[in-house]
Amino acid sequence: MAGNSFGNIFRLTTFGESHGEAIGGVIDGCPAGLLIDLDLIQSELAKRKPGQSKITTQRKEPDQVEFLSGIFEGKTTGTPIGFMIRNTNQKPEDYNHLKDAYRPSHADFTYQAKYAHRDHLGGGRSSARETACRVVGGAIAKQILAHAGIEIQGYVSQVGDIKVLKHYHELDLSKTFDHPVHCPDPTLADMMYNYIDKVRKEGDTIGGTISCAIKGVPAGLGEPVFDRLEADLAKAMLSINASKGFEIGSGFSGTNKRGSDHNDIFYVKNDQTIGTRTNHSGGIQGGISNGEDIYFNVAFKPVATIMQQQQTVNSKLEEVTVTGKGRHDPCVLPRAVVIVESMAALVLADHYLRNRSSQL
Amino acid sequence: MAGNSFGNIFRLTTFGESHGEAIGGVIDGCPAGLLIDLDLIQSELAKRKPGQSKITTQRKEPDQVEFLSGIFEGKTTGTPIGFMIRNTNQKPEDYNHLKDAYRPSHADFTYQAKYAHRDHLGGGRSSARETACRVVGGAIAKQILAHAGIEIQGYVSQVGDIKVLKHYHELDLSKTFDHPVHCPDPTLADMMYNYIDKVRKEGDTIGGTISCAIKGVPAGLGEPVFDRLEADLAKAMLSINASKGFEIGSGFSGTNKRGSDHNDIFYVKNDQTIGTRTNHSGGIQGGISNGEDIYFNVAFKPVATIMQQQQTVNSKLEEVTVTGKGRHDPCVLPRAVVIVESMAALVLADHYLRNRSSQL
Amino acid sequence: MAGNSFGNIFRLTTFGESHGEAIGGVIDGCPAGLLIDLDLIQSELAKRKPGQSKITTQRKEPDQVEFLSGIFEGKTTGTPIGFMIRNTNQKPEDYNHLKDAYRPSHADFTYQAKYAHRDHLGGGRSSARETACRVVGGAIAKQILAHAGIEIQGYVSQVGDIKVLKHYHELDLSKTFDHPVHCPDPTLADMMYNYIDKVRKEGDTIGGTISCAIKGVPAGLGEPVFDRLEADLAKAMLSINASKGFEIGSGFSGTNKRGSDHNDIFYVKNDQTIGTRTNHSGGIQGGISNGEDIYFNVAFKPVATIMQQQQTVNSKLEEVTVTGKGRHDPCVLPRAVVIVESMAALVLADHYLRNRSSQL
Amino acid sequence: MAGNSFGNIFRLTTFGESHGEAIGGVIDGCPAGLLIDLDLIQSELAKRKPGQSKITTQRKEPDQVEFLSGIFEGKTTGTPIGFMIRNTNQKPEDYNHLKDAYRPSHADFTYQAKYAHRDHLGGGRSSARETACRVVGGAIAKQILAHAGIEIQGYVSQVGDIKVLKHYHELDLSKTFDHPVHCPDPTLADMMYNYIDKVRKEGDTIGGTISCAIKGVPAGLGEPVFDRLEADLAKAMLSINASKGFEIGSGFSGTNKRGSDHNDIFYVKNDQTIGTRTNHSGGIQGGISNGEDIYFNVAFKPVATIMQQQQTVNSKLEEVTVTGKGRHDPCVLPRAVVIVESMAALVLADHYLRNRSSQL
Repeated sequence: MAGNSFGNIFRLTTFGESHGEAIGGVIDGCPAGLLIDLDLIQSELAKRKPGQSKITTQRKEPDQVEFLSGIFEGKTTGTPIGFMIRNTNQKPEDYNHLKDAYRPSHADFTYQAKYAHRDHLGGGRSSARETACRVVGGAIAKQILAHAGIEIQGYVSQVGDIKVLKHYHELDLSKTFDHPVHCPDPTLADMMYNYIDKVRKEGDTIGGTISCAIKGVPAGLGEPVFDRLEADLAKAMLSINASKGFEIGSGFSGTNKRGSDHNDIFYVKNDQTIGTRTNHSGGIQGGISNGEDIYFNVAFKPVATIMQQQQTVNSKLEEVTVTGKGRHDPCVLPRAVVIVESMAALVLADHYLRNRSSQL
Repeated sequence: MAGNSFGNIFRLTTFGESHGEAIGGVIDGCPAGLLIDLDLIQSELAKRKPGQSKITTQRKEPDQVEFLSGIFEGKTTGTPIGFMIRNTNQKPEDYNHLKDAYRPSHADFTYQAKYAHRDHLGGGRSSARETACRVVGGAIAKQILAHAGIEIQGYVSQVGDIKVLKHYHELDLSKTFDHPVHCPDPTLADMMYNYIDKVRKEGDTIGGTISCAIKGVPAGLGEPVFDRLEADLAKAMLSINASKGFEIGSGFSGTNKRGSDHNDIFYVKNDQTIGTRTNHSGGIQGGISNGEDIYFNVAFKPVATIMQQQQTVNSKLEEVTVTGKGRHDPCVLPRAVVIVESMAALVLADHYLRNRSSQL
Repeated sequence: MAGNSFGNIFRLTTFGESHGEAIGGVIDGCPAGLLIDLDLIQSELAKRKPGQSKITTQRKEPDQVEFLSGIFEGKTTGTPIGFMIRNTNQKPEDYNHLKDAYRPSHADFTYQAKYAHRDHLGGGRSSARETACRVVGGAIAKQILAHAGIEIQGYVSQVGDIKVLKHYHELDLSKTFDHPVHCPDPTLADMMYNYIDKVRKEGDTIGGTISCAIKGVPAGLGEPVFDRLEADLAKAMLSINASKGFEIGSGFSGTNKRGSDHNDIFYVKNDQTIGTRTNHSGGIQGGISNGEDIYFNVAFKPVATIMQQQQTVNSKLEEVTVTGKGRHDPCVLPRAVVIVESMAALVLADHYLRNRSSQL
Repeated sequence: MAGNSFGNIFRLTTFGESHGEAIGGVIDGCPAGLLIDLDLIQSELAKRKPGQSKITTQRKEPDQVEFLSGIFEGKTTGTPIGFMIRNTNQKPEDYNHLKDAYRPSHADFTYQAKYAHRDHLGGGRSSARETACRVVGGAIAKQILAHAGIEIQGYVSQVGDIKVLKHYHELDLSKTFDHPVHCPDPTLADMMYNYIDKVRKEGDTIGGTISCAIKGVPAGLGEPVFDRLEADLAKAMLSINASKGFEIGSGFSGTNKRGSDHNDIFYVKNDQTIGTRTNHSGGIQGGISNGEDIYFNVAFKPVATIMQQQQTVNSKLEEVTVTGKGRHDPCVLPRAVVIVESMAALVLADHYLRNRSSQL
């Protein structure tokens, strides 16, 4: 009920604050017999690691995951997978000057309102550091999905006013992680990089969008009514720090369409299966996957911590000014791509297992 | 796990197909001692009832809710509230011609894929009729929230290309349900009405957006990490038929903003509480309400059933044509306003109760 | 969280008070494609119906279940199965004299403490009438289990000091429901019947035990640690009105045994599968079924309502006397056999489906 | 769904095998502001630690718990409490000889059936070592309960044929942990000790019962129908390794009582609150606490690992013999007392928080 678990059959529970001993989690419900590629998990973590380039925070976090249980001789055993990542590079002194102040658009004030106390040493549980555990869970979920032929590919599709206008199937998504911005269009990626660097030098931050395509999903995943596949994806995406919006298939751009334009016409494919000629639905109809690609966009606001002086108040109701210190991201988008993928993987793996009980 | 329940402490479970005996549900976890206004529940149902005007489906569904348990001498007892709405106006013959065909952008095909059978008599569980039960649950949730000073106001903010550009606080939301379109701006409402009617005459359908504001939310509701308040709202909204997107606060329009513009500056209000000068956050920071208004938009695609001939295939993999028959909505938006409000009420009531365990 | 749901994948939610409009429930998660035998459900209900003989309450409750959804052309569709049983024979006047008094060993006092109100018209939600819904859910669960070759057989094994000393495999359990006491040993059944009748004439009530055997369970059902099969069975049984104890396999009688006596030795059976020579474990080892029969006992205290004058206090803290009126059971055991079976069926069906995700 | 979590609002999730890197867990839903006594947690662990005396296993497990998150400046923060206990004294060579054999009455065979693989290095997840994490969770739950005036006291009430016949209120339960057997009656404790030592020398094991009393429980805890307080206690107790039975209040001994004897008569106490003159109900009526003491017994079978030669089969269906090696308990009872208390504490703390939503 306190919201630190995600999923039903395949279920990730996480713990840990940015400045505590460690972050970590428990993956319960991973089927036995899955061969685990530990290098792949570490390489997934590398995609969200700080310090990848000058446009990400310069914090040094090795983010070395230690598995504590649930894997034996390289395979999952069916028992819970416990894991932990030690916090090694805390600099609480970066936060001392903020002890009483409520940083604008941070969670300081709301945590105080909820829990009646203030943990001023960094973002605590609201820090993006927590998302490393989602990447670990997502990396294992991806291996279940790979087994089922499902692949998830996210990428930065917008930074500020620089936007990838091509549809995802016009892009070579295998190139996404070749560029530090994690955008598959090299020209736009360079433009984004330079823009983020400019924003950084100005002590400011900038928002953007991440797009994601999921390929190879069999028809039948998702539960009608409340746990529609798109509903669980929406929850997953809006649970990521700084995300403010989600749209699937035609999304907001479908709102001024007519049904006669928007409907996806069924046809018989060469392999004698049924497909749709267009895919405005985004691969989901009635909450259930139809076998076409699932694709969606996620909106991210600019990061709240800026290197400029801002007015605010403190817990004594005094007006004070704060200035960002320490090591922060001017743009969360590049590091968030793998988080978006991971959360999508958690949703898909869970529904893949849930669907095993749909028929007698 | 089959997805027919919503909420944790305040929990709605629904059942029923459009063409079966009845739809209904169980509300579990409603605290004892709540005075229930049955007329208010019925008036909420009237807001989504078919046949309100010529721009909604002409089906006649009295939608008379019968409460079966959990209320004694006008008050909730703490035991589950069972309720039921009889289906009285089924016309299965309207669907006989579709027995084998997969209607484009409907759930026929995906249900077949998931459950290995076909229920051709109307939309079955995927029918929007199911949402009547959400309105019943939402109407009771609203009464809990009213007790806590929380009010939810939705309205149609866009139909096709006709869009309310004013922010919600520039509108008189008390007027929303005065116009059959359920848009509070009378001029735009008339334009929308005429446009929907035009679309209807052309045998077509049209999409749009619904906006919603939630006022009076105390700071502290929402759980960090996975069950952020905006994450649960996103799931709630994407679980509604035909919805394709959700954005909160600045949403997608905040993606090209800078942090220095987007941050909401705290200040001390006249009543010596803390507020923010702007509200780009949409009333939620770090997943937890901050006391400001919560507001969000939901995108709806055009309804799939059109009164035009369409190509498709049937379960024998034959190419066939289908034409919509019967009584359908040219635009789902007017009837969906109260559904959006109801789902928001379910989320807020649940988090209101969950928050009772945040502190010792 | 309010405790009116049972099960995880196969999940029953119930509602309804003894004196309200109806009782009923929702079965969510029943796989699609199960042929439903409605007569079997009704015959299960007949086994707990009042008025079967002079030793059960003379209330007349037709207990006609009405299915409202989830079944189409005789088969489950995968959508939730809603059902309802109208209350037709309430006699609230039987309870008027108890309006303020707390009946000894009833739930009047504890409901008042929990919910701050008193519903004096019968037992309300704490009435055994609620268990009819469990029988409906259990009857459907039994049909899933029959499909998997699993059979559940309960019987009255003790009433007062009259006890069936034979082990279940020495009894012909197919005869259990031939006798109104629901004990398969005809001689003991007659003795029990006469004893219950004697107790009834004395205005008193008597306790006893129900035993239950589950045959045909494949090895592998149950989840280690908290959701062990025996743990979920224990919860199921202790959730039944008037039950006070549960023991599985050797149970309390195994507590003075030595390991060398108690251990169940594995051997290879004629069909080249592995069995155990004894079954002190009761078919479960490490929380997981081992393929042997599961068997357990449930203790029931005497019913609280007696036809004698008793001292008590009322809500004004006055000492008062109460005398049972109306139509009550002198012994709950005969009617509880099918309830025990039903709860066991809910547990087994749920674990049968849960086990589908144990392996990749 | 894989059963490694317990509780709803106050929720413990555990991980870890006996022979892996570490065991540990996450406590989610602990309210903020609870002062944590770390020494108390460690002293609770000491009560189940191996090697306390010659009648317990001679394994050396320091069982030093490391808290990783959720506690700041000595108090809970409301965020999840992650913790870990390193495994330091594994002796996998003690198990090598068992690589293929199914030990009688162990979980080797059922785990193989469920997960299609065999982890032969000790009991793995089915090892009693896992219960150390329950003690950590229980120790924190006890601190919440202490805050609410609730105290839990377990003790060994039977070993083999040596049984404490006095009721718990005739015993000085504060002395329980003074004796290594954890029985508060010194004379019986000595007898039990000598008997266990005799059994140990014979290479055998012996069962027994643990009794538990819970004092200071306010009226109103527990949820009607499925989540009755006694149902959740029953599940908690049957989830402990080697437990085979549970009875509350009069339990199995109430089954031959008459209602006129068994009913607990209400009266007005000197402090003008309502109590009962007897307590056959065990402090719970209708699933809800009534303010009287809760008390129950738990049956434990003899430990399966004996130091004698036993017949069995291996995974190749060959008949083989096995002999216990290594360091095992001749009697699980002394070490299980604190586990029983811990599980009871988890149940009570959860229901204490759940009850916060019973009334408006």
